[in-house]
Amino acid sequence: MKDPYSNKKRFKMLIINYIQHTNLNIMKKFYLSIVLFLLIITGNAQEPILGFTAENAKKEHELEAKFDAQLSAVNLDSAMHRLAAKPHFTGSDYGHQNAEWILKQFKDWGYDAHIESYQILFPYPKTRLLELTGPSTYTAKLGSVPIIGDKYTQQGDLLLPSYNAFSSDGDVEAELVFVNYGVPEDYDQLEKMGISVKGKIVIAKYYGSWRGIKPKLAAEKGAIGCIIYSDPADDGYVQGDIYPKGAFKDENGVQRGSVMDMPLYPGDVLTPGYAATKNAKRLDRKDAKTITKIPVLPISYADAQPFLAALEGPVAPQSWRGGLPITYHIGPGPAKVHLRLEFDWQLKPIYNVVAKMKGTEFPDEWVMRGNHHDAWVHGANDPISGLVAMMEEARAVGELAKSGNKPKRSIIYFAWDAEEPGLIGSTEWVEAHQDELKKSGVAYINTDSNGRGFLEAGGSHTLQAMVKQVAEGVQDPQTGVSVIKRSSASNRVNGREGDFKLSALGSGSDYTPFIQHTGVASLNLGFGGEDNGGEYHTIFDTYPMYKRFKDPDFTYGITLAKTAGHIVLRLANADVLPFEFQQWYTTVNGYLEEVMKETSKLREETEKHNKMVTDNDFELAADPTKPFIKPKKEAAVPHLDFSTLENTMTDIKTTIDEFSEKDILNLSNAKKKEVNQKLMAIERSLTNEKGLPRRPWYKHEIYAPGFYTGYGVKTLPGVREAIEQTNWKEAREQISVLTETLNNFNTKLKDILKLM
Amino acid sequence: MKDPYSNKKRFKMLIINYIQHTNLNIMKKFYLSIVLFLLIITGNAQEPILGFTAENAKKEHELEAKFDAQLSAVNLDSAMHRLAAKPHFTGSDYGHQNAEWILKQFKDWGYDAHIESYQILFPYPKTRLLELTGPSTYTAKLGSVPIIGDKYTQQGDLLLPSYNAFSSDGDVEAELVFVNYGVPEDYDQLEKMGISVKGKIVIAKYYGSWRGIKPKLAAEKGAIGCIIYSDPADDGYVQGDIYPKGAFKDENGVQRGSVMDMPLYPGDVLTPGYAATKNAKRLDRKDAKTITKIPVLPISYADAQPFLAALEGPVAPQSWRGGLPITYHIGPGPAKVHLRLEFDWQLKPIYNVVAKMKGTEFPDEWVMRGNHHDAWVHGANDPISGLVAMMEEARAVGELAKSGNKPKRSIIYFAWDAEEPGLIGSTEWVEAHQDELKKSGVAYINTDSNGRGFLEAGGSHTLQAMVKQVAEGVQDPQTGVSVIKRSSASNRVNGREGDFKLSALGSGSDYTPFIQHTGVASLNLGFGGEDNGGEYHTIFDTYPMYKRFKDPDFTYGITLAKTAGHIVLRLANADVLPFEFQQWYTTVNGYLEEVMKETSKLREETEKHNKMVTDNDFELAADPTKPFIKPKKEAAVPHLDFSTLENTMTDIKTTIDEFSEKDILNLSNAKKKEVNQKLMAIERSLTNEKGLPRRPWYKHEIYAPGFYTGYGVKTLPGVREAIEQTNWKEAREQISVLTETLNNFNTKLKDILKLM
Repeated sequence: MKDPYSNKKRFKMLIINYIQHTNLNIMKKFYLSIVLFLLIITGNAQEPILGFTAENAKKEHELEAKFDAQLSAVNLDSAMHRLAAKPHFTGSDYGHQNAEWILKQFKDWGYDAHIESYQILFPYPKTRLLELTGPSTYTAKLGSVPIIGDKYTQQGDLLLPSYNAFSSDGDVEAELVFVNYGVPEDYDQLEKMGISVKGKIVIAKYYGSWRGIKPKLAAEKGAIGCIIYSDPADDGYVQGDIYPKGAFKDENGVQRGSVMDMPLYPGDVLTPGYAATKNAKRLDRKDAKTITKIPVLPISYADAQPFLAALEGPVAPQSWRGGLPITYHIGPGPAKVHLRLEFDWQLKPIYNVVAKMKGTEFPDEWVMRGNHHDAWVHGANDPISGLVAMMEEARAVGELAKSGNKPKRSIIYFAWDAEEPGLIGSTEWVEAHQDELKKSGVAYINTDSNGRGFLEAGGSHTLQAMVKQVAEGVQDPQTGVSVIKRSSASNRVNGREGDFKLSALGSGSDYTPFIQHTGVASLNLGFGGEDNGGEYHTIFDTYPMYKRFKDPDFTYGITLAKTAGHIVLRLANADVLPFEFQQWYTTVNGYLEEVMKETSKLREETEKHNKMVTDNDFELAADPTKPFIKPKKEAAVPHLDFSTLENTMTDIKTTIDEFSEKDILNLSNAKKKEVNQKLMAIERSLTNEKGLPRRPWYKHEIYAPGFYTGYGVKTLPGVREAIEQTNWKEAREQISVLTETLNNFNTKLKDILKLM
Repeated sequence: MKDPYSNKKRFKMLIINYIQHTNLNIMKKFYLSIVLFLLIITGNAQEPILGFTAENAKKEHELEAKFDAQLSAVNLDSAMHRLAAKPHFTGSDYGHQNAEWILKQFKDWGYDAHIESYQILFPYPKTRLLELTGPSTYTAKLGSVPIIGDKYTQQGDLLLPSYNAFSSDGDVEAELVFVNYGVPEDYDQLEKMGISVKGKIVIAKYYGSWRGIKPKLAAEKGAIGCIIYSDPADDGYVQGDIYPKGAFKDENGVQRGSVMDMPLYPGDVLTPGYAATKNAKRLDRKDAKTITKIPVLPISYADAQPFLAALEGPVAPQSWRGGLPITYHIGPGPAKVHLRLEFDWQLKPIYNVVAKMKGTEFPDEWVMRGNHHDAWVHGANDPISGLVAMMEEARAVGELAKSGNKPKRSIIYFAWDAEEPGLIGSTEWVEAHQDELKKSGVAYINTDSNGRGFLEAGGSHTLQAMVKQVAEGVQDPQTGVSVIKRSSASNRVNGREGDFKLSALGSGSDYTPFIQHTGVASLNLGFGGEDNGGEYHTIFDTYPMYKRFKDPDFTYGITLAKTAGHIVLRLANADVLPFEFQQWYTTVNGYLEEVMKETSKLREETEKHNKMVTDNDFELAADPTKPFIKPKKEAAVPHLDFSTLENTMTDIKTTIDEFSEKDILNLSNAKKKEVNQKLMAIERSLTNEKGLPRRPWYKHEIYAPGFYTGYGVKTLPGVREAIEQTNWKEAREQISVLTETLNNFNTKLKDILKLM
């Protein structure tokens, strides 16, 4: 790793500061900038790049400088203005128009582009009724209330009414129970208090988990309906001034969103594991396992307050209470609720834009890059802010190609449709192209919403070293230091570890089918942290909102285009694909140590708990005037045999150490090609064809979205979730499966060594 | 220490459970209770008591059983009904009537009782005006709004208007700044944000520190006025249903209270360190250092909301935000505030009731017991709940005396006046009786508010073993186990250490002049934790409120009477005073280790901070669109020489080990008397005549209220506060002072050893 404080860098920083802070006239500033630009080009040109020979590194640096010079914020601005002009949800006219427009751009930029369409099940809301029927009465407004000063919010019939896609139809009436975020710990707490949701309707706050977990768990616990609302403590006036004074959610704002059971499988609910082509065999809707079991509806905090205020029963625990000016009670009842939902379940066409720039040397090695184009409403931030950055990146890549700098490997850009309802566009495409992907997939780089702030990057840890190197070369537009230096500073100031690390990927955007279903090494990139607001999936995620509160001059859009663009270009042009295994090892071995530690902790906690049960501590500590359910003793946590897994990791470390010593860049071109073929496939060796227990669609053994967290990642998911669920038989089985997978990974790595 | 799970105890528990849970008729239950009672008497009678010979322990057990049998909840109920019938604040007619009534009771019970009166400065509110003068206008209501269903709250003119006693007079107008709790960390945060309160009026939430700290710090920071309000997140509907539906503070409730600078010195502001007798030389009011420098007024959350809502400027940090349905901004301004306060500063007579039961063998050895009688309004909970328990205890002691069981040592009961405005009654008495106290003071046991729940006990750690032994013998009325077992269970369930420990005493009730000024070993006792509410210092701390939400049947009043009564009786009758030093050592050595650890932590944090400053981390992590003040480097934390202090603690441990091996109970009576004389004085050896830096009134070297926390304790205060304030010169000096004091303590302990 290079020293970020090299003298050269310091000199550059001095010049940058000088230019920014002195009172030179514009022309002098301009000349100094030219000097700086040349310095950067010639300076960087001497710095090594992972996977490049010295000579090719120089060329790559020059190429990236040309690439950067192509990027223009004006293009992002005008593209957002066009794409977010009207609501463009899945199946909408404007969504289709957007796809066609995007297609045309890619074609204009020299791409071999087309639209790949699928027919997917998509529910539109037909009836939405939510009433408090006792002891007082109230009918939820559920309306989209226009916001003064933002004409986009006044587009009436074009706006998609607020709902949760893939809620089941239903007509239920029952007492209400407040379940906090509706996550497993909340139900544990309710059980301790002797409160059951069986036969009840639950009301849960947004946040705390991905929203789809809330109706899933509620149904598992016996509830017959589910309301989700945005509490002002998490998402409203407690966070900051509300729109349009500030960026936060007003009292009528409703977060739309899918509640499809994506941790089971994402994509079209009727075609699990295969593409939703026109003539595909489809499940009956009643057999689609990822549609919720109970009706679920999202509401605003203005609508939620009368329901919550009508609850009695125990006061909610401290950490459950939100920001409404009421005492939060749990119920059940006396509040009684009637919820009626009907959806128009139709097969709808979706439009993925696929644009290919064929590689000159290795056309069958694909570097893939995607961002979705569908939104819930206007989606200026989600997803257009990311999409316009990707499009500008693609345009620049196209310009480079036109000027003779075609990539060595093929680059494919995707503008996905139907991400919002359940990663459907990307999933169907991946399912349709499994065989090609397994053969040709080098990596997939995803983006989505983007704004002002800090680099946030997650992905396959074989790519961590490369991403870090790229990010060290991209300047933060507000401070002039590298985006990685700024990120690290923020980490340290906020008490986290400063060193750059990729986070592990759970779910929540279109990388999921690539990495977790297919084993294509993936990344997810974005900037943010200084762009907070409450617009997510509401009618005020609009162009004027974005221009005021997110990335007013699109400098972070440009920064994202640079970061992702350099990654794409390096992957496309590398002599040897820049996968690195020492950092992979440190991270994955860290996960293993974590799982072992968690197991010991669980054992100690169980012992402590059981002793407290024996000693009657819970009974004695409880207030005798309140209902008390004596906790049960829990089964002792056995000692699991992690030794074979640990030995495997030790073996892998030996292989990796040997690998690190090899000078792969000096191999013959033919050998390099062979090595690259095997490197491309290495992430696939971390998958297991059988998939995870009870959800075979998820095949990656290192990363998965949590079965009960949704988007939230579970690393080493087979083993970790078995332990968390105290399923010791399965934990032992999954330790074997993971060991086998990692041995396979080790074998593949050794196979590469054999080539040298 | 005896085993709390002895077979005898288990057998008793079986019987208790059997009596409680079976369907026996009343008479059978009664007979079984008698059996149990005899079992307890004969059982306990064989158990040893700290400081008693076996024979005398048996007598003491019998005496305590007789004592317990005297106690009647009906008496507590009727006494509260009488004492809390009308407001009885310092200087009020009803306060005086209460004192006379209490005096009469003590006399009737056989005590040598009298009233000791002092003339103290006490401010009554004359003018209270608080207005928002811009950009919108609002005049704070400041009214006591009667509560439907509680006629006590409708006593009109009798109710003391809400104010903070010992606020200065003032008439100020300025922009408003929200300062969270107004504690030092909050001002650090404001400084980081570049916000000054100089020339402004601050608004602070109650809680986070003792209230008097808020105007004190605000004035130090340059503010010219201070508003304190109860935020519903800490003290209102967020906590639970509001009165009268529930026990929590309604929108109009205002917490009254003193803002006298008690961490400097408590008691009459005009007579620091000496008694406020009629002809005492008094300071000019302008020279009284414990009156606030700026005007300060407490308000309700209904009154606070318009002021807070009118603020602009940065949004308050997450942890500052309260429970009002607004976005909390910091300001300064544009809200502009006018605050005008005038007080009627009068010398008022106060009435301490002092009731003595002369000891038969050691009349000049005083066991002291007190609870205040003055309240802010009706004070059913604060202080009457504790007072009526103490009075019932005193009545029972009187009955024992009448039946021939007079105590060996003198017992003195105190019903203090003027605790609320600043521990004035007790402080003046202690200052008047310094010499006698130093000669005769064995211990002082304090109580104050009391309610349903768990034993909360703080005090001198020489008394910890004794308190634990007493508490093991007192039954919790709701569960039937000992109060200590219940407390421990609650500690464990709430993740704290289970073993019983006395907390260290800061300030907040009448023990302060005894322990911290005079070095009389002290205890503070009470039950609570299942009696939460918002009545503290408001108009709804009334009899009906207490009966509904605190201790409806006064069983915890009885339990307090038993706990405190047994402690008093044991101290009064012990053969050798039950001071124990092993637990003292463990605790105090723990404080020393903690201070050393804190110093190292401060050093590491300072190094980390300074590196982050050097690396520009703060600047890089900051949002460039928001004001940013670059943090300064802090002076490095030196290594302090704790070695002499540590060696002293080692020496003390040697002495204590030797002490523990001695069989003091077998000494001759004459020797025992000598030992007792020295044991009585041992706590005094932990004081230092010069007192703490800048506050010589506080002389104890182990315990003090924090200079910037108020009630909150600082252990080893001289050393700890110097370190916290990074005053290294003073820290070194205070290490010497503490070493000297502890050496003195060691010498005194060795002197006792010499007697054996």
